[in-house]
Amino acid sequence: MADPARKADVTEPFVRLVDLVGADLNDVNDLIRERMSSEHAPRIPAISAHLIEAGGKRLRPILTLAASQLCGCTGTDHVKLAATVEFIHTATLLHDDVVDESAQRRGRTTANILWDNKSSVLVGDYLFSRAFQLMVETGSLRVLDILSTASAIIAEGEVLQLTTAHDLTTDETRYRQVINGKTAALFRAAAEVGGVIAGASEDKIAALATYGNALGTAFQLSDDYLDYGGSAEALGKNTGDDFREGKVTMPVILAYSRGSADDRTFWERAVGKGNWQDEDLPRALSLVRETGALAETLEQARTEIAMANAAMEVFDDSPLLSALRDVAQFVVDRDS
Amino acid sequence: MADPARKADVTEPFVRLVDLVGADLNDVNDLIRERMSSEHAPRIPAISAHLIEAGGKRLRPILTLAASQLCGCTGTDHVKLAATVEFIHTATLLHDDVVDESAQRRGRTTANILWDNKSSVLVGDYLFSRAFQLMVETGSLRVLDILSTASAIIAEGEVLQLTTAHDLTTDETRYRQVINGKTAALFRAAAEVGGVIAGASEDKIAALATYGNALGTAFQLSDDYLDYGGSAEALGKNTGDDFREGKVTMPVILAYSRGSADDRTFWERAVGKGNWQDEDLPRALSLVRETGALAETLEQARTEIAMANAAMEVFDDSPLLSALRDVAQFVVDRDS
Repeated sequence: MADPARKADVTEPFVRLVDLVGADLNDVNDLIRERMSSEHAPRIPAISAHLIEAGGKRLRPILTLAASQLCGCTGTDHVKLAATVEFIHTATLLHDDVVDESAQRRGRTTANILWDNKSSVLVGDYLFSRAFQLMVETGSLRVLDILSTASAIIAEGEVLQLTTAHDLTTDETRYRQVINGKTAALFRAAAEVGGVIAGASEDKIAALATYGNALGTAFQLSDDYLDYGGSAEALGKNTGDDFREGKVTMPVILAYSRGSADDRTFWERAVGKGNWQDEDLPRALSLVRETGALAETLEQARTEIAMANAAMEVFDDSPLLSALRDVAQFVVDRDS
Repeated sequence: MADPARKADVTEPFVRLVDLVGADLNDVNDLIRERMSSEHAPRIPAISAHLIEAGGKRLRPILTLAASQLCGCTGTDHVKLAATVEFIHTATLLHDDVVDESAQRRGRTTANILWDNKSSVLVGDYLFSRAFQLMVETGSLRVLDILSTASAIIAEGEVLQLTTAHDLTTDETRYRQVINGKTAALFRAAAEVGGVIAGASEDKIAALATYGNALGTAFQLSDDYLDYGGSAEALGKNTGDDFREGKVTMPVILAYSRGSADDRTFWERAVGKGNWQDEDLPRALSLVRETGALAETLEQARTEIAMANAAMEVFDDSPLLSALRDVAQFVVDRDS
């Protein structure tokens, strides 16, 4: 984010979406604060607040609110579900930071460093349980089915990701499963339950699920793209993080499969064995570019967004629909 | 367990209970094996099986089966709930072993050592999600409410326990909350959902909840008692584990509150600061005995069992009721 003025400009669709769901979002934030409390263990709200109030974008709960509003919801169950989705997301972040031994998230020191791994594991479990309690309050078994299944897919995807790190035999299909668990499943469920709780027709619920799934997939592919520099001018301070961590993401999978014998030897050493030096990053950046792997990654993300927007044709035009479409486009147009 | 013949003898009520629910228990084991599978991540069933098939007693799922049979259940939902309860328990064990940095459980090397902490955290999350999926299949919102609330209490209790280690200001009330989270909440829920799913009357459901809660509490108090040697003849190989780990359990809380200034200084050094030598254990053992703290701990456990058995008077006599009563008695009569 080198230029704040530019940032304000490109995130405009997102700001518009937040404005449209703003009143409900305030209720979600109040509910989150209320439910992350703990009578007996003050460490729980302390750790939860550290992460939840650190200024995350609330993308997933906003998706639930927008989907339910688009389907004409009434009552407060959609607010409960949006809080549920944020709790599940926060629980996975707490556990992810333990698993990845991360020291920073959203520009702040992580809970596993500020407190310890133990607290992060257990507070994650607490938030996950609180999420299920909130869902149960809505009384919708279908919602419970969707979100418990999404949770299982998330955990499975995380385990799969553990076993794909440094593994250059990971192919596109397997990596798509990782993306599904890591990002797409919760985006999908977040949108789908918004429709379900609003009592929408099956075709609308299916459209929301497709939109959420495609948006989440595109979001991850676009992150992968940006981590290898995206468009050449936009090299950011995090460029190469995935490379240094030995993550086998889409640009690497494609560059490896298209590479010469020499290229493959390079990837096997640097990513497969994690034996890299600083001067290896420029070579990696140029290989993903020369083989067309980087362009293909972005193209895959764009294909997802096209699917997302095509699915949404089932809805009548409205400012909310327009904001959802523009946010989807923003995901693949952003340069950081 | 120095003498296997004696073990067979004292565990007789438990063996009788297992015999009575045996057919259902086989179904539970089959269902557990089926549901801990993962299409994409083979590490999940590997880790789950390591723990689930290590020969745990299946006490909690047996409680669900016995409670539901006692209330005349039909169908297969009670089998699903028993598997749910075992999955929740296994998930908490996986996370506990990470939190406690344990190397051994049930006589085997723990998953966090054989694989790693990351896998234990994520496979625990997976089993927890699978547990929720299983409950959702029963279609009972009341069951979902009971088990999601129990899960939140468990996580809260674990966080509370983190903050009570080495903390000699922990009083009986606070420690009872730890026990509630650590053991009683899941025992209670396991028995209660058995009654709910069988469509039992409210007084029977309440009796089962009371029984489960008291049994779990007595089980933990009795463990605390045995860890300080129990009856003098029965010093086991694990005697003093809690002492060495700085756990502030009931015998310590009572001995500390009843101790002289000298005694308190001893506890503050050895448990509070965790600064102990091998020769400190005999002194700790004699202090919990001389102050009556050890006898009082066992007495508290016996009071719980009396409450458990009084609550069960709502049921007509049957071999199953008799086995449940005898198992409760066994919990406070065992010497290892």
